[in-house]
Amino acid sequence: MTKLAISGLIRPMLEPRLPQGLDVRWFMTHEEAMEAVSDAEIGWFDMNDQKAMAETLIAAKKLKWLNSIYAGLDFLPMDVLIERGITVTNGAGINAITIAEYVVMGMLNIAKGYREVVRAQDRHEWLLDSPGKRELAGSKALLLGYGAIGKLIQPRLEAFDVAVSVVRRSGGEGTLRPDEWRARLGEFDWVILAVPATPETEGMIGAEELAAMKSDCVIVNIARGSVIDQTALVEALEKKAIGGAFLDVTTPEPLPADHPLWSLANAHVTMHLSGRAQDKMFVRSADRFLDNLDKYLRGEPVAPVFDPRLGY
Amino acid sequence: MTKLAISGLIRPMLEPRLPQGLDVRWFMTHEEAMEAVSDAEIGWFDMNDQKAMAETLIAAKKLKWLNSIYAGLDFLPMDVLIERGITVTNGAGINAITIAEYVVMGMLNIAKGYREVVRAQDRHEWLLDSPGKRELAGSKALLLGYGAIGKLIQPRLEAFDVAVSVVRRSGGEGTLRPDEWRARLGEFDWVILAVPATPETEGMIGAEELAAMKSDCVIVNIARGSVIDQTALVEALEKKAIGGAFLDVTTPEPLPADHPLWSLANAHVTMHLSGRAQDKMFVRSADRFLDNLDKYLRGEPVAPVFDPRLGY
Repeated sequence: MTKLAISGLIRPMLEPRLPQGLDVRWFMTHEEAMEAVSDAEIGWFDMNDQKAMAETLIAAKKLKWLNSIYAGLDFLPMDVLIERGITVTNGAGINAITIAEYVVMGMLNIAKGYREVVRAQDRHEWLLDSPGKRELAGSKALLLGYGAIGKLIQPRLEAFDVAVSVVRRSGGEGTLRPDEWRARLGEFDWVILAVPATPETEGMIGAEELAAMKSDCVIVNIARGSVIDQTALVEALEKKAIGGAFLDVTTPEPLPADHPLWSLANAHVTMHLSGRAQDKMFVRSADRFLDNLDKYLRGEPVAPVFDPRLGY
Repeated sequence: MTKLAISGLIRPMLEPRLPQGLDVRWFMTHEEAMEAVSDAEIGWFDMNDQKAMAETLIAAKKLKWLNSIYAGLDFLPMDVLIERGITVTNGAGINAITIAEYVVMGMLNIAKGYREVVRAQDRHEWLLDSPGKRELAGSKALLLGYGAIGKLIQPRLEAFDVAVSVVRRSGGEGTLRPDEWRARLGEFDWVILAVPATPETEGMIGAEELAAMKSDCVIVNIARGSVIDQTALVEALEKKAIGGAFLDVTTPEPLPADHPLWSLANAHVTMHLSGRAQDKMFVRSADRFLDNLDKYLRGEPVAPVFDPRLGY
């Protein structure tokens, strides 16, 4: 009988829909998880505590398939996944719709200066002119990262008549190659970071890249805080060397209350909420797991597969 | 020689580009305007003071063509325009792009509860969950009004996978007729008002229409405050009978500081800024006027023509 170790939090959504003939151990605490995973072939043990989740993985010595609701799994020991040949399915795309919506929202808010409108309403003050006067129409965006999220951002922006340049290894029309975008940074009104967190993308936007941007260019980061050299970013924002930053992710998270990003007039901090701004995450994740479980039991490939060698 | 009376505010943009052989009177004050229009054939005399502008029109006894940057001209005496057979070109479409962008911005802000995120940043507080959890994707919008603005709203929302129902007299696929939408109000997550201000649209959303909406339905009004029975709206918002309202327009404007709409948690007041959230309005308007002037002098039709009998 195939053995599964699954977090009890998901039980109500999964149990009534599981196929017959499985040995499922539901756990609630970290201790129960460590026990439950010891002989499990299939595991789904997402935890807010990333260290505890990594420990649980290490204890899962017979694991063949690990499922997760998270897209970014860079906090797990990649060497363990590689050595044991564990197949990993992640949450790539589960949050993609709401994150893509969040990106456009952020761009529109900055274009129209909407944050100042909110503050004016709080003061009961009728503004006579718009605090922001940019249109998305006719602007140019550089989209770094063309996974599930990037692929949803592109058509949404194009509907607003934004010219979107995508960076792809494979090239193709309207795209830039990874070695081309830096030289053209000065052309864009928006730089959108939707790359996975890998050693390659760490600090990919640093002082040099910031200096190459237009003085009204806005950076949107829904990837990972570590993708930007945050010290250089704060300096660029303080000097108004760029137009602004819409930061769903920061280093660290949560951001300490005295961090300069909170109070900079051109920094918008959204507390890693973009993926949570939906109510379908658990439903979508359960649907996907059950579909994959069906395939796994029939010996068919599961998807989407996270490659621990690439980190995404 | 063709006589024109044009506001001096537009002079720097127009004068270098006007054709030869015209008698243009530029004016700065209302008194100068009253004098300048007296024998003008062509007039462009937009004024913030709507009464003064109406008076100026009455004084323009030889006017054949009136141009305006405004789309809504309901404050002018329609009978004067009709009796004198004055051709009117208005600003329909000049602000359409930014207003369409504003509508989507408002919907996204409400969907994600972004106003609470702004307030949390102001408190330096890292929120742990999104104050709003709606996705535009999969939602349904009723779009009332299918002029220049409505036609731009539709494709932008469709790119977000919103099912948009349009109301058109002529009918057609995916559209509702004017006598059909009321019966189907309960189907929509969003009701967007982009109709012209006419006697027909005045108070078109009243207590009955509000009661027919879903309890989480959000109204977006970028038409005129008078299109909604505002007393009924405030009551519906207070009772949380609907989800919220994104109001670019109100009755009156400006809204008095003690008006309940300012402080209702589900009312978003944007101070008629949607059309101003751009920096191309005057350029576009001047370009259009010069193009129309060229046509007018050659005896060709000008556009877009405002019909005082219809009010749009």
